[in-house]
Amino acid sequence: MPKPIYVLNGPNLNLLGTREPHIYGSETLGEVETRVRGRAGALGHEVVFRQTNHEGELIDWVQQARVSAAALIINPAGYGHTSVALHDALKAVEVPIVEVHLSNPARREDFRRRSFVSNVAQGVIAGLGAQGYELAVEAAARLAAEGEA
Amino acid sequence: MPKPIYVLNGPNLNLLGTREPHIYGSETLGEVETRVRGRAGALGHEVVFRQTNHEGELIDWVQQARVSAAALIINPAGYGHTSVALHDALKAVEVPIVEVHLSNPARREDFRRRSFVSNVAQGVIAGLGAQGYELAVEAAARLAAEGEA
Amino acid sequence: MPKPIYVLNGPNLNLLGTREPHIYGSETLGEVETRVRGRAGALGHEVVFRQTNHEGELIDWVQQARVSAAALIINPAGYGHTSVALHDALKAVEVPIVEVHLSNPARREDFRRRSFVSNVAQGVIAGLGAQGYELAVEAAARLAAEGEA
Amino acid sequence: MPKPIYVLNGPNLNLLGTREPHIYGSETLGEVETRVRGRAGALGHEVVFRQTNHEGELIDWVQQARVSAAALIINPAGYGHTSVALHDALKAVEVPIVEVHLSNPARREDFRRRSFVSNVAQGVIAGLGAQGYELAVEAAARLAAEGEA
Amino acid sequence: MPKPIYVLNGPNLNLLGTREPHIYGSETLGEVETRVRGRAGALGHEVVFRQTNHEGELIDWVQQARVSAAALIINPAGYGHTSVALHDALKAVEVPIVEVHLSNPARREDFRRRSFVSNVAQGVIAGLGAQGYELAVEAAARLAAEGEA
Amino acid sequence: MPKPIYVLNGPNLNLLGTREPHIYGSETLGEVETRVRGRAGALGHEVVFRQTNHEGELIDWVQQARVSAAALIINPAGYGHTSVALHDALKAVEVPIVEVHLSNPARREDFRRRSFVSNVAQGVIAGLGAQGYELAVEAAARLAAEGEA
Amino acid sequence: MPKPIYVLNGPNLNLLGTREPHIYGSETLGEVETRVRGRAGALGHEVVFRQTNHEGELIDWVQQARVSAAALIINPAGYGHTSVALHDALKAVEVPIVEVHLSNPARREDFRRRSFVSNVAQGVIAGLGAQGYELAVEAAARLAAEGEA
Amino acid sequence: MPKPIYVLNGPNLNLLGTREPHIYGSETLGEVETRVRGRAGALGHEVVFRQTNHEGELIDWVQQARVSAAALIINPAGYGHTSVALHDALKAVEVPIVEVHLSNPARREDFRRRSFVSNVAQGVIAGLGAQGYELAVEAAARLAAEGEA
Amino acid sequence: MPKPIYVLNGPNLNLLGTREPHIYGSETLGEVETRVRGRAGALGHEVVFRQTNHEGELIDWVQQARVSAAALIINPAGYGHTSVALHDALKAVEVPIVEVHLSNPARREDFRRRSFVSNVAQGVIAGLGAQGYELAVEAAARLAAEGEA
Amino acid sequence: MPKPIYVLNGPNLNLLGTREPHIYGSETLGEVETRVRGRAGALGHEVVFRQTNHEGELIDWVQQARVSAAALIINPAGYGHTSVALHDALKAVEVPIVEVHLSNPARREDFRRRSFVSNVAQGVIAGLGAQGYELAVEAAARLAAEGEA
Amino acid sequence: MPKPIYVLNGPNLNLLGTREPHIYGSETLGEVETRVRGRAGALGHEVVFRQTNHEGELIDWVQQARVSAAALIINPAGYGHTSVALHDALKAVEVPIVEVHLSNPARREDFRRRSFVSNVAQGVIAGLGAQGYELAVEAAARLAAEGEA
Amino acid sequence: MPKPIYVLNGPNLNLLGTREPHIYGSETLGEVETRVRGRAGALGHEVVFRQTNHEGELIDWVQQARVSAAALIINPAGYGHTSVALHDALKAVEVPIVEVHLSNPARREDFRRRSFVSNVAQGVIAGLGAQGYELAVEAAARLAAEGEA
Repeated sequence: MPKPIYVLNGPNLNLLGTREPHIYGSETLGEVETRVRGRAGALGHEVVFRQTNHEGELIDWVQQARVSAAALIINPAGYGHTSVALHDALKAVEVPIVEVHLSNPARREDFRRRSFVSNVAQGVIAGLGAQGYELAVEAAARLAAEGEA
Repeated sequence: MPKPIYVLNGPNLNLLGTREPHIYGSETLGEVETRVRGRAGALGHEVVFRQTNHEGELIDWVQQARVSAAALIINPAGYGHTSVALHDALKAVEVPIVEVHLSNPARREDFRRRSFVSNVAQGVIAGLGAQGYELAVEAAARLAAEGEA
Repeated sequence: MPKPIYVLNGPNLNLLGTREPHIYGSETLGEVETRVRGRAGALGHEVVFRQTNHEGELIDWVQQARVSAAALIINPAGYGHTSVALHDALKAVEVPIVEVHLSNPARREDFRRRSFVSNVAQGVIAGLGAQGYELAVEAAARLAAEGEA
Repeated sequence: MPKPIYVLNGPNLNLLGTREPHIYGSETLGEVETRVRGRAGALGHEVVFRQTNHEGELIDWVQQARVSAAALIINPAGYGHTSVALHDALKAVEVPIVEVHLSNPARREDFRRRSFVSNVAQGVIAGLGAQGYELAVEAAARLAAEGEA
Repeated sequence: MPKPIYVLNGPNLNLLGTREPHIYGSETLGEVETRVRGRAGALGHEVVFRQTNHEGELIDWVQQARVSAAALIINPAGYGHTSVALHDALKAVEVPIVEVHLSNPARREDFRRRSFVSNVAQGVIAGLGAQGYELAVEAAARLAAEGEA
Repeated sequence: MPKPIYVLNGPNLNLLGTREPHIYGSETLGEVETRVRGRAGALGHEVVFRQTNHEGELIDWVQQARVSAAALIINPAGYGHTSVALHDALKAVEVPIVEVHLSNPARREDFRRRSFVSNVAQGVIAGLGAQGYELAVEAAARLAAEGEA
Repeated sequence: MPKPIYVLNGPNLNLLGTREPHIYGSETLGEVETRVRGRAGALGHEVVFRQTNHEGELIDWVQQARVSAAALIINPAGYGHTSVALHDALKAVEVPIVEVHLSNPARREDFRRRSFVSNVAQGVIAGLGAQGYELAVEAAARLAAEGEA
Repeated sequence: MPKPIYVLNGPNLNLLGTREPHIYGSETLGEVETRVRGRAGALGHEVVFRQTNHEGELIDWVQQARVSAAALIINPAGYGHTSVALHDALKAVEVPIVEVHLSNPARREDFRRRSFVSNVAQGVIAGLGAQGYELAVEAAARLAAEGEA
Repeated sequence: MPKPIYVLNGPNLNLLGTREPHIYGSETLGEVETRVRGRAGALGHEVVFRQTNHEGELIDWVQQARVSAAALIINPAGYGHTSVALHDALKAVEVPIVEVHLSNPARREDFRRRSFVSNVAQGVIAGLGAQGYELAVEAAARLAAEGEA
Repeated sequence: MPKPIYVLNGPNLNLLGTREPHIYGSETLGEVETRVRGRAGALGHEVVFRQTNHEGELIDWVQQARVSAAALIINPAGYGHTSVALHDALKAVEVPIVEVHLSNPARREDFRRRSFVSNVAQGVIAGLGAQGYELAVEAAARLAAEGEA
Repeated sequence: MPKPIYVLNGPNLNLLGTREPHIYGSETLGEVETRVRGRAGALGHEVVFRQTNHEGELIDWVQQARVSAAALIINPAGYGHTSVALHDALKAVEVPIVEVHLSNPARREDFRRRSFVSNVAQGVIAGLGAQGYELAVEAAARLAAEGEA
Repeated sequence: MPKPIYVLNGPNLNLLGTREPHIYGSETLGEVETRVRGRAGALGHEVVFRQTNHEGELIDWVQQARVSAAALIINPAGYGHTSVALHDALKAVEVPIVEVHLSNPARREDFRRRSFVSNVAQGVIAGLGAQGYELAVEAAARLAAEGEA
């Protein structure tokens, strides 16, 4: 049986649907998870779906994904702009990585321009809200399949 | 009948499949077009698919899309990093815009970090090769449908 | 009964009174807490007073304050200069936020100039030592009252 | 008979009156042309009035103006912020040059601060909408007359 | 009777006609005033025309213009590049503001690139010498009329 | 009898209550003065309360405060961001200095980030409107008392 | 028979000999072409010699050279300082590239320091006027010969 | 009996020996610990040797070392480049601090140039792999001895 | 009889001898004036010696010196680092200008590195305390004599 | 017999023990040499130990080390921050290079942050005074041995 | 008889052919000299050909060339990126100067972008290996002849 | 008998009087030496007067001055802008240091703004030509006398 796709969510994403809906949309993280499981299931993949506000925990999980995942989808939220430690954890991951952002950082504050995740991810999907997660699943599944082939 | 989705490709993308395949992949632009038409057709959309090396022509086409398209997918290639004129043309477009890059600019030269297109696009998909176009079609179709609703 | 004022303290503030007293003063954090409770009590407010060295825990608490506090006073210490994640957590808070610094960052190292908290706080009080917390309580109480009115 | 005044318009100005009227006003480029011809006629000057989205064509026309015009009025739009090639073309022009902007770049995005046209133009008129063209005609006519004297 | 147009001139403009005529022209400030009164009179406007070397006095006058003027024309000279205080005074002005420069700052030293006036002025006219004042009067009169309408 | 507390106000603060009330609040400077005198009186201090638009006058007053004041509260307004001369005057002051800003500079334009006053003030209070002055009085009185002790 | 050497000239070089002769010299582009053909002929090479003001056309020609040329000599003029699109086109060229500048950019404006062509060219020859083209032919011929060997 | 030497390891160092061995070497962290204990033992020191992916935990441990250690050796990994909070914790430590990096940051990405640890450490040893830890032990032991003397 | 040498002193120099004597020395400005008059008298020059805290007054005096002085010695103090207006006034002065600083700006804060006076002065003397004024007199007298010759 | 270890010392290190002992310690360079020879001898290595104030001589010696040394230890002192020529010389060296600094550049002036030696050295040891040389010998000996194996 | 052409070579060029041949080629400096003498001889010029690792010696030789050479060809190697002193020496040279680089600095590290030689040289030839010297001879001979004419 | 004053001259000053006289004046270095000896003699000081193009030699001499001079006057020429090594040598000098520049660096190229000598010199005299040396002697003699007192 194939390894699962890991979907890791960074700080404040637990507030999804309640925090600044004009920026992040009104869907909750639970609803996003349901969508993700649906799309992944159709492609034959289990999903490990988690959220944390703790940088260290995010790194712990990335290290788990390193050995247990077919592919890794990550929405690093605020840590993506500042964490070299997260960058280093992801750099040690050999399965495909797809970064997702609900909003489009290029249209927001300057301090969201820098990403320590984008430069270790294969692909980046931004600004497409919850749908972005679904597209990331499709991309991750394809990349995982290619990696195995 | 719905308006078509415009898919506009900037400079050097006509070389796709032959130019630096380790960066851009080995699929030709014609093959990308076939994929795009397939995915869009399944979602009930025609596609206008074009490529040019000329910044002015790209702007002309964006202005056409402004009145004729349901949504606009654009891979601005090199002009995305330098063209305020293209930015201004896109800013006048009211239908959804999705920017696509075959490779992931965050993993390349510094001068590819700046984008004058990302900050006027709803969504950005990068680093996923030809599949990125397909995902962009799905996103554009959804955004167009939401805009009409 | 009114909601309490949250007073959240970031990393190394547990060392207060022992660490570099020429910069941070000789009062301990416990003594600061006593002062804060006194001033808040006089204004009819309970206080939730906490300290942590963990960025994620600070974010967890900010999220709690978001639903449970009348106002939030935060001394982010080192995380104020680096944490976009903390910024995002605070941005989701709708009650008044007052940032406090014991010392005056403008008189210290360059890397203390940037603040990811100041730009989401209503007010900032710096350089006034433990008294700054008391003044912050007075300000927070007033802002909370205005918000309710 | 005096040489005409050239009035060259850069990318997206063909959309004038329809694109972002809160920034650029509601007059069309045709209406601007009518105003310009009126003011110039009163001062005894013909007008060559053109618009293009193509940087190369704009340069071609500047080279024509170099030999055929009494003075050159240019609204370079987006190319003014990025085109060294346009700068070089203008630098070879010996008749007076007046740069016009409908909006005031100093009140807009940072990337509109840099101009490769202002530093080769005698005069700059910005933020005065269509009237700015008329004032430019008056200035250009005076400068041309002084140049001939 | 309509309110007058204020024309305020900053430091060293009292030397006009004697100081560096290759940059600023050979007309004196008195001659500029005569021109300005002529053009304004033709448009039905009185003129308050003043010069000072004192930043504080310039701010005092801007505050007067705030309540007494139909429109404000300002040549801030050196203070335009450095004065946040002047910026703030102008920001409090609700009638139209037109900034004038005798020379074209874009062709001069780097430290003349920054303007704290341009970003609060409706319009900017630069490099057209004394004629620039006349054009500013025409623009200011039109903007004032639109504001009243 | 104790020396008075000086409260010095920089440019445009005379417009308080009328200028941009969404930023600076609707209280006038006279009302702020009344508040300040009340709070200071309760702490046994006279107040010297002044406002000027002139940088030189502000410096003259700071030099007076140097010999006559128990403490100095200063809202430098625009001059705080640009005046090395004011910085130098304050540096020669040996009594406590508290800087006050009505609004929070960290939430405004970039050019309000730099302060030549903060780096010579003991304390900084920003974003708390007129209440900030009252808190500054409390802080200044405490610092003055400590200095005497 | 060997493939020809392509010599591509960017914007405003058609004005050679008339534009700013103190910078660019008094020889016309036709005269440069004659020199180039002479030197190349002596080395057994045909020459394709072209000039355009259009960035897109320059890119089209570079793409032609990619398949038809033994080597490519390019004077990108203004586009060399700004065009990522041209950079990308050149990067896809596998035959030798030599960049030529009539004047020496290091002695001119700051904005001529950056080159998007130099970092994909084998060699660069600058400041030697028309002779630079001849030397470039010699270098290109040698590099082409080595590539074939 | 002497206090132990603390050896604290930051994020991702638990992967040592498996992650990017061309950069970090093939020894595991356990093997490094063995080496360290050996060298320290020979010098009469116990060792407290720990690793964490959590910034807050690293700070907690630094605070412990502050009271319990003879000296502190720290490999902050990614947190060294970003953590002001860690810097502040280390600044409160009065026993000697030696920073160790397995690889040489000066030969890696730009974002590894900045260190918030180096500027509070006595000594820095970089690029010498596991041996660097041993040398750090020797240095720390000497510095500790000098401090006691 | 020769024109006098003007010696103009900027803000806070009236405090000389009392303000920060470790930086500025313990001589008063009156004592400096006496020295200056002595040295100048020996060289046959009268002296006009003034001090002001007002930028505008400093500019007024520079304009006087422009017509009345044989040479101008200026210690601009804080205004030297910030005043484009003062720069412009000095640029209009045709007699020799010597800038004096009591302390050496290169050894002080970064914001004292920039000077708007040095780049219009013939000579600069810094860090030599009151003696620097005397040396400036000698230099100014020589430069004035050469100018007359 | 093994090749010697070269220990090359840059400018002003001949003053060691007399120059700024609070920064550089009180040991002389001769004493450092003795230590170095001791440690190296114990590891079976001869030492070539030299000092020069001349950049060119330092480069000459690096070139000698290139062919004659088992490993190279270099304290480039001031030249390490400025010398591309030294960088190039070191880049041509294939034996191991260890850079030593007596003090810790990260705790000193900004201009000591940049190093043209660190980015061509395997290892860097800083801030450990004369002991740093000894540790460098141990590291160099190990690296040399590995290189031979 | 004509003056000789000086060909001066900076640091590390004595290693040519042995150092990093993938960057600098496999020809030795002696072979380059032979080529240079051949080409110059054919054009009727003697050659003075030298190499040094010492900046001061390079400056001494440039000063000799100033009086003894018909033209100066210089490959400053590392000193070209850092030496203002060399720049000043070259600025005093009135005969033609051609700068040569074996490799193309634009394709190498950032610190090779800055040149203090290019901005005082007539021409620059880079990236063409040993052939670059020959082309420089041809250019220098022509420029020298023109200077004499 | 008092120690002599050292006057050290950096690169290219041997060309004085012949190199760019519009910048450096027409007096030779020999004539400057004569002046210096005269002025120093009148003040009872011998002079050691030297010039070199070699940075290392300049450092050697500074080290000599450190033990043998009453005061040090240095015109570092080009090395002043680039040499950290020279800075370090001067920092070890305890007698007074006066820096002299013939021209005024503030009026020249940007790369002459930075000085590694000014920030270790007591005084700086610039732009006053050969007279600047004489004034430096007077200043150095006074500073030396004060140091002895």
